[in-house]
Amino acid sequence: MAEASSKAEHLVGVDLGGTKILAGVFTSSLKIIGRSKMSTKAERGTSSVIERIARCVQDAVDECDLSLKQIKGIGIGAPGSVDPENGRVMFAGNLDWKDVGLRKELEKQLEVPVFLGNDCNICTLGVHEVELEAKPKNMIGVFLGTGIGGGLILDGKMFTGHNRTAGEVGHMVLEVNGPKCTCGNRGCWEAFASRSALFRQIQQAVKDGQKTVLTEMLGNDLKDLRSGDLRKAIKQGDKFVEHIVEEAAKYTGIAVANLINIIGPEVVVIGGGLMDALENEMLSVIVECAREHAFPGSDKGVKILASKLGDDAGITGGAVLARKETK
Amino acid sequence: MAEASSKAEHLVGVDLGGTKILAGVFTSSLKIIGRSKMSTKAERGTSSVIERIARCVQDAVDECDLSLKQIKGIGIGAPGSVDPENGRVMFAGNLDWKDVGLRKELEKQLEVPVFLGNDCNICTLGVHEVELEAKPKNMIGVFLGTGIGGGLILDGKMFTGHNRTAGEVGHMVLEVNGPKCTCGNRGCWEAFASRSALFRQIQQAVKDGQKTVLTEMLGNDLKDLRSGDLRKAIKQGDKFVEHIVEEAAKYTGIAVANLINIIGPEVVVIGGGLMDALENEMLSVIVECAREHAFPGSDKGVKILASKLGDDAGITGGAVLARKETK
Repeated sequence: MAEASSKAEHLVGVDLGGTKILAGVFTSSLKIIGRSKMSTKAERGTSSVIERIARCVQDAVDECDLSLKQIKGIGIGAPGSVDPENGRVMFAGNLDWKDVGLRKELEKQLEVPVFLGNDCNICTLGVHEVELEAKPKNMIGVFLGTGIGGGLILDGKMFTGHNRTAGEVGHMVLEVNGPKCTCGNRGCWEAFASRSALFRQIQQAVKDGQKTVLTEMLGNDLKDLRSGDLRKAIKQGDKFVEHIVEEAAKYTGIAVANLINIIGPEVVVIGGGLMDALENEMLSVIVECAREHAFPGSDKGVKILASKLGDDAGITGGAVLARKETK
Repeated sequence: MAEASSKAEHLVGVDLGGTKILAGVFTSSLKIIGRSKMSTKAERGTSSVIERIARCVQDAVDECDLSLKQIKGIGIGAPGSVDPENGRVMFAGNLDWKDVGLRKELEKQLEVPVFLGNDCNICTLGVHEVELEAKPKNMIGVFLGTGIGGGLILDGKMFTGHNRTAGEVGHMVLEVNGPKCTCGNRGCWEAFASRSALFRQIQQAVKDGQKTVLTEMLGNDLKDLRSGDLRKAIKQGDKFVEHIVEEAAKYTGIAVANLINIIGPEVVVIGGGLMDALENEMLSVIVECAREHAFPGSDKGVKILASKLGDDAGITGGAVLARKETK
């Protein structure tokens, strides 16, 4: 037994975000056995963040009474564009990273093989492998959080396209003259249905004199507003918040219909923090609106589901990637 | 020589449309050596149309001094949804067809193997094989005609997705509260940039008193309006028509950016009758607008081209399909 357990058979998944780092330790059959969390502190610079990732991994491994020698591989989902072959993060806006050799640095510090992918692609991989028993050949994952991103599984494999940017669904224009998006364009899906978009709309309306229970809960500046607060407000009968969330769900449904028309998936899974908090309020509207807008025949038998993985999608996908790559 | 030429080595491609049938005879190296054209006369019913397809193929073959015995295979692009495995057209709105066993019927009449695909998928196949020397692994074909359709080549192969409807790009919503589309939704790409959309806008404006050289050319009802007339009007300095065409090109550019963001192709090729007639007026606007709207990094090195195949895209793709399937 002692001999078996000292073998490198466990996997670590890491979700590297702009504000926090999550690490999870998984068995070879992808059961999670421990985790840790750390703030990213991107402002301290690249090497500090890499050192924090290493520390977060070590903490999670230690939490499970394991040592790094028992880890077969580490899979990391990083925000932005990633070069998996060379293990580099090419560009990550919210980390202020440009062409960072993340794999090499981490492998030096941890002495475990490291594998990289784009965060939303990795989340999609996690959902596909762990959540969908039927393992659909063609699947789209979309994640509603601070922004909106996605990933594609086509013909049973992760599909990243020519510049490894496939699945950059959040900047799909849904309304040519719509609200300004952070990317510089107007009317992107992200400008209608990301957490930031919802919060911006709510904060603006409150400034303009809109009444909402949110200000009773959090004060007029709504500084600490979180996705869960929207759910609470709706439960308390706040029609204004309900309407804002419903509109976001409608736009999301239209975006999902566009994706179904273009790609023809068997399953669309919707995850991310916003969806996690507001599944009951959003999913049925999304599904109805997607079916209404899908081209006749293209959504036949297509499942539109909410992910149950929540915050674990990224670390799970990281572990799936590590398992795939070390097989 | 006589012996060699009697071998079944030629290919026939057929483009079955709502108003006309085109057939082309190709050598095994995909050089076109003859063609024929016939009106579809869909109103006469299914078996009449199938009989006309057979006649059109025979005419083209005869035109080349060949016999059907020298044809290795016939590839057909049909409008609507197609079941290639069973050789059936499942649904074709503008032919008023539902579940028609086209392959079986044609094979009975012509005694040559017949292969089917969706028309825009087949056009994409033709463009990929004959027009793009680099044979990009990931490519999108879009076709601006009466409607707007598309096809995907992913990982070097035609990709049709779960319901064989992938590439149904024309009904991508670009403006949630935009103009009504024939599909019942609002603001689809097709409602902004198809030939029908342009003609409808022009005819409505003329009714509302808009002056244009088109009415001088064709009379006030604009009954015989064709894509080429728009080009002529623009050449004569008609700012109204120029503006209408430019707007269609802008929406097309945004749609192309959406496709690049979502799929990450290496090449986007734009074809179809409208593009064929108005390439000089539209392409540069499309490219500029697509680059402006593509997510940073996702359009790097991505080519956006106009197809030179014009009306031959469908018959060429049909021949490519027949060659692939009889190899």
